Amino acid sequence: MNKIVIVGAVAGGATVASQIRRLDSESEIIVFEKDRDMSFANCSLPYYLGKVVDSRDKVVETTPEIFFDKKQITVKTHHKVTSINEDDQTVTVHNLQQDKTFEESYDKLILSPGCSANTLGLNSDMAFTLRNLEDTDDIDAYIEQHNVSNALIVGAGYISLEVLENFYARGITPTLIHRSTHINKLMDEDLNQTIIDELDKREINYRFNEEIDKVEGKKVYFKSGKVESYDMIIEGVGIKPNSDFIASSSIQLDDQGYIPVNNRFQTNIPNVYALGDIIKACYRHVDLEAHIPLAWGAHRAASVIAEQIAGNPNMVFKGFLGANIVKFFDYSLASVGVNPQLLDQFNYEYVETTQGTHAGYYPGNTQITLRVYFDKSNRRILRAAAVGQQGVDKRIDILSMAMMNQLTIDELTEFEVAYAPPYSSPKDVINMIGYKARNK
Amino acid sequence: MNKIVIVGAVAGGATVASQIRRLDSESEIIVFEKDRDMSFANCSLPYYLGKVVDSRDKVVETTPEIFFDKKQITVKTHHKVTSINEDDQTVTVHNLQQDKTFEESYDKLILSPGCSANTLGLNSDMAFTLRNLEDTDDIDAYIEQHNVSNALIVGAGYISLEVLENFYARGITPTLIHRSTHINKLMDEDLNQTIIDELDKREINYRFNEEIDKVEGKKVYFKSGKVESYDMIIEGVGIKPNSDFIASSSIQLDDQGYIPVNNRFQTNIPNVYALGDIIKACYRHVDLEAHIPLAWGAHRAASVIAEQIAGNPNMVFKGFLGANIVKFFDYSLASVGVNPQLLDQFNYEYVETTQGTHAGYYPGNTQITLRVYFDKSNRRILRAAAVGQQGVDKRIDILSMAMMNQLTIDELTEFEVAYAPPYSSPKDVINMIGYKARNK
Repeated sequence: MNKIVIVGAVAGGATVASQIRRLDSESEIIVFEKDRDMSFANCSLPYYLGKVVDSRDKVVETTPEIFFDKKQITVKTHHKVTSINEDDQTVTVHNLQQDKTFEESYDKLILSPGCSANTLGLNSDMAFTLRNLEDTDDIDAYIEQHNVSNALIVGAGYISLEVLENFYARGITPTLIHRSTHINKLMDEDLNQTIIDELDKREINYRFNEEIDKVEGKKVYFKSGKVESYDMIIEGVGIKPNSDFIASSSIQLDDQGYIPVNNRFQTNIPNVYALGDIIKACYRHVDLEAHIPLAWGAHRAASVIAEQIAGNPNMVFKGFLGANIVKFFDYSLASVGVNPQLLDQFNYEYVETTQGTHAGYYPGNTQITLRVYFDKSNRRILRAAAVGQQGVDKRIDILSMAMMNQLTIDELTEFEVAYAPPYSSPKDVINMIGYKARNK
Repeated sequence: MNKIVIVGAVAGGATVASQIRRLDSESEIIVFEKDRDMSFANCSLPYYLGKVVDSRDKVVETTPEIFFDKKQITVKTHHKVTSINEDDQTVTVHNLQQDKTFEESYDKLILSPGCSANTLGLNSDMAFTLRNLEDTDDIDAYIEQHNVSNALIVGAGYISLEVLENFYARGITPTLIHRSTHINKLMDEDLNQTIIDELDKREINYRFNEEIDKVEGKKVYFKSGKVESYDMIIEGVGIKPNSDFIASSSIQLDDQGYIPVNNRFQTNIPNVYALGDIIKACYRHVDLEAHIPLAWGAHRAASVIAEQIAGNPNMVFKGFLGANIVKFFDYSLASVGVNPQLLDQFNYEYVETTQGTHAGYYPGNTQITLRVYFDKSNRRILRAAAVGQQGVDKRIDILSMAMMNQLTIDELTEFEVAYAPPYSSPKDVINMIGYKARNK
């Protein structure tokens, strides 16, 4: 019988606890969570703010009480792990509500502390970040109490884009600023034109190469010299790893504070695993490090770690492909593979096509643009990106499956699509990429 | 410079002609088509009848005149090839309009004669089959001229289901009969319950284990003893190969009249290729013969044959997966892999799950049922079938890509889905199949 201690009770921590219990009914499992809530649906938070998700019950996945009743897993919220003592296999825990500190021993320690939102340090009551349910409740309360009718969104990553769309849906006039012209860094820069088009279509204000200088009351002073008045500011300016409590241990951190793990999600210290947004792992299809702070990886890692602890060492993780997608108004933007910034590591070429998502004569057809990058040395796919109103998720998911199998771009001609007029063409856009690659 | 003769100018024939011209600007290419029209959009025909496709221009892809202007390919319609004389490399052609017969020599002969619709031999003016544009025009004209308000659909394959839905959309009351209870044979029998439910929901009449005995005027006498009156009958009772003209040659036909081809789409006779609904090939993922009379295969074969003729013998076909899909009112039914009837050839097991197509809290979520069969000896996927209102095409296409790579059912846990709430779950239904398979 093991005693398993888990740090963090959101996606990674709560899931790994459940997965371990599924395989092992006996071990003692204790989860420490520094914040108020466990296991909420992170990805729902922007949609909850937009009232697209209509009930708070749908956002809260479980509570410590229910979790214990169902799974005999102890979750202690408001408990911050402050240090790891790997020699005697204990952690030091600070009970934040009672302001008491104690030691907890472990046989296996699993780290899923996640990341925190960066802030601009604006010293303003109306500035918020959105990372957890508590933040969401604070934002929601502020909107109601202050009759927020417009908001400044700073940054243009996934969270910012989703918050912008949801504020707009709620009737709050959003304005977007970003410190460079390089928005949504997971996507090819030129394909982000869709985001601009969607903003323009709705006459939503945006300014790039713009930053906040200072905030006084509702007045926002920008570095450009502009001064504007806003009811609220949402800062979506990146994340930083919650790894301060690890620094005093021998657990290795990379220079950004992330935890490198092997294909079993083991750290460099025996009996210590890590998962979720905190880890640095590798890509599956190329030999490069990958930091992919997304939900799929946390769930996958939870299963692998549970299998490891249950004594199945052959169930290993084969790496990330980095599949990701965001909805922005009427469009979907998705990609899979190495980040655009990493393409320079390869001798690459790309093939692009824009065509209907289904048979041209069938109603509701819309255009999809698909771009696939490949390594000219071995023709293997490195990255794919797609933008359109329909069928974007489908094409990127098909290519994710292709890249899982190290497919070459030429083999895309062989992909057998399930064809009927409402769904695709006899030569799907995926096939066309393969055919067009013949001349490259 | 080759002289290339092609038999048939619909999907297979017209496409292979274009593909050859793309690689070879010099060869003479002549296409003989026994019927009135070349290169129409077969799969659009039911939707054209339903006025879902709103213009005839969208159905007619090209004409011999335009085709010649663009590609210097000669298409002769109303020209029926009546025999193949492989020893002197000629075909005998019957010009049906002028009732003249002539010989045409070839260096390469490509057979894409397709199939014809079976008929019940009812000897009734109001009975139609639907196989080409001429049939469609005849049906359309009959509907208009006779104020057709109800129709009997005989048979329950893809064409019958699509015609039924489109007649309903046009305001014609359909009744469906089928000679057994085994409708839509490409799908698992129990998953076809959706079809019944969709009929019931709309109070559309259907009877199984029912056949027509005879027709007198509008009166239809059934074998059950029932007598009912209909304005029109559509017979969707299967297809038969148009291979009579081949029988006198040495080209091998199987016992059903289909042409076996190798992985270069070559017949047993030198310089004679075949493609489209007429061919019998093999599955890609298992060692079994496959007859897959669908559009994707015709297009793929056209490319491979063109590459062969252009002198690229390594561009071969690796076999069919049999991916197929049909829309029936609000639902999609799709599958990939061996036919249900072939599963008995294997020591198989299946895993099934029903879950939301995307995050439960995000609006518009609907349930999808996915079933995946695998070979217990090597865990490889044999077949997958899915039914639901959304995301069915996506899941079957992902699995088609998986099966192209001989994936095992267990490896489905490793599929990295592009996740955001409107599109999927962090553990997609595909992943869940893999996880559920652990206990089987």
